[in-house]
Order: sequence, then structure tokens, then C-alpha cells
Amino acid sequence: MKRSEIRKAQLRALDYFDKAGIHLTDIERDKIEVADFGLNDLENQGLEILTYVNTDRCCAKELILFPGQACPEHMHPPVENEPGKEETFRCRWGEVFLYVDGEPSEALSVDPPSKWCRVRKEIHLRPGEQYTLAPGTKHWFKAGSQGAVVSEFSTKSRDEADIFTDPNIVRIPEIEED
Amino acid sequence: MKRSEIRKAQLRALDYFDKAGIHLTDIERDKIEVADFGLNDLENQGLEILTYVNTDRCCAKELILFPGQACPEHMHPPVENEPGKEETFRCRWGEVFLYVDGEPSEALSVDPPSKWCRVRKEIHLRPGEQYTLAPGTKHWFKAGSQGAVVSEFSTKSRDEADIFTDPNIVRIPEIEED
Repeated sequence: MKRSEIRKAQLRALDYFDKAGIHLTDIERDKIEVADFGLNDLENQGLEILTYVNTDRCCAKELILFPGQACPEHMHPPVENEPGKEETFRCRWGEVFLYVDGEPSEALSVDPPSKWCRVRKEIHLRPGEQYTLAPGTKHWFKAGSQGAVVSEFSTKSRDEADIFTDPNIVRIPEIEED
Repeated sequence: MKRSEIRKAQLRALDYFDKAGIHLTDIERDKIEVADFGLNDLENQGLEILTYVNTDRCCAKELILFPGQACPEHMHPPVENEPGKEETFRCRWGEVFLYVDGEPSEALSVDPPSKWCRVRKEIHLRPGEQYTLAPGTKHWFKAGSQGAVVSEFSTKSRDEADIFTDPNIVRIPEIEED
């Protein structure tokens, strides 16, 4: 992504923090991460992220999604003998649709039972609603027509370890100066 | 505390969630914890808490402090071979003053150096400002004149293990029906 595109998306993200009534320091306003996952289609597949804290033990972030913007499907694998990242998403403003792979028991409860049937749940989160993902669950999410502000509470975040379903994705792409 | 006093404090806390623009579900509105620490002086020593999530690995809460209300000094000891609870406090609305014991190195840097000098820091947090406490740090905090709404991001919360400086404190007091 070009530096100018990143700056534009950061400024746009700030409007969403304002809409949600979330105050940021000046330093935070300048360090909003803009992720296009190397797909060069930020409007549809992308995420704006402000990490408040990320230690060896826990992490908290604010996620901004522009209208209709989606974070592509991925999962957080175990790292260094620790189970995968555990995440709670809490919608603060707008609305977000979260899609998660069902538990194997749900796949077995279809008729006829099948170990191979993939069950996917859609979870619709409005302001004040939240959902906790078990470690290792494949998931993706997409904002509604207004966009969304979502708090993420989790264990340590290791973005570089994330496994995306789309093999074209680069989680931490290079920034091009323009 | 009497059930009626708890209900009154819950309703008062809801005003602060509104001031901060934080949306809650109906279930959450009814489950705000009101803690007077068994001191029977909620106006001055107390805390209103909404726990969003608390798993074996991480925890997120919203803390409400009425004007001038303080959460008494305490620390979170190691439990089950885990270091003590690690906490980040982020002010969302109003202002809060956080008092923490300094690191031993600070006590050693006074002149003359002393291992026994107790150094305490005052950290003033306004909306958008935050502070992370290392495990095992003694701390207390108090709202400014407007009250405060503070997000807490942490490792697992085990209130029953907290060690308070005031021996009269009962962290989880009984509720009296009235």
C-alpha cells in the first residue's frame, strides 16, 4: 500500500472513533494500522486497527471497518506451546457480521450426520453485543452498511502467525513511499 | 449492602455508561456489580463493575467510579503458578487518579539510597489515556470530581484472591434483602 493511501484511511478511521465517542491520544491518532492484507482492495477487504496494549499475556484493540469492509477468513494457531489466540469481539458502534466455523458436534447433528459437512454460523453484533471465539476457530467478519467499531479483547496477538484461507494474503505488507 | 442500595448504585452507574457512549445489553444493565468492599461507605470507597469477559486467559471490564469515589489499595498475588494479574486501565470518560507503588529501583535512586523508602506514583488519566500495571504492584485509584469510566484489560480476574491493605475489607460481601 502507498503511504498516501494509508494516511487517507487513517483519517477516515478517526471519524469512526469520533462516531463511537472513543477518545484517542495524539500519538494513537498517528499509529492506526491500516491492513489491506496485500490484496490491494482496501475498500472491500481490509481493517483499521488501534492496539491499546499487547503483552505476553493479553491484548486489547479497537477495530474499525468501513461500510461493507471485511476482514478475510483466518485462524490463530497454537504458538510456543500456548493454545491459539482467544478473542472476544464487542461491537461498539455500527454493526458487524461475524462468520465462524461451527463445532464438530454441529456438523454431526445434521441429518444425515457427517464428519465432513462444514457448518458456518453467522453472528450479528450490534452495539453492546459481543461474541467470544474459542482458540483455533476459523473466522471472518464484515461491517454492515454504516461501518463498525469493534473492541477486541484477547490473549497475546501475534499477527505474523495468523493463518489465512486465501493464499494470496500477506498479513504485514510493505509500505510504498509515494 | 442492602439490595435497594445496590439497585440505586446500578441505576446511577448506567448514567455513566450513557455519558461515555457505551452501549449495554439489557442483561448487562442488570448485572452491574456494586462493590463497597464491606466498608459501608459506597460514596467514598466503592466501585461499580461490568465484566464483559473473564476466561482462564484474559478479562475485560468496564469500571465506573462516582465523583470522588475510590477503589481501596490492593494487589493481585500469583495464583496457581501464574504471575499476578496484569492490568491496563484506560480512561474513557471523566478522569481518574491512579496511585501505584514505585519500582524498587526508584526507591534506590533517592538520596541517600534506601531499600525501605516507599515511592508512590500518581498517574492522572484523562479520556484516551491509559496505564499498564505490572503484576504484584500495589495500587489504588480515585475518580476526579465528575466521576470516571475506565476500561480494564487484563489477564484472568480472581477477585477472591486480591490482597487489600485495609484488613477490614471484604471483597465479596453478602447482600442483605430489604
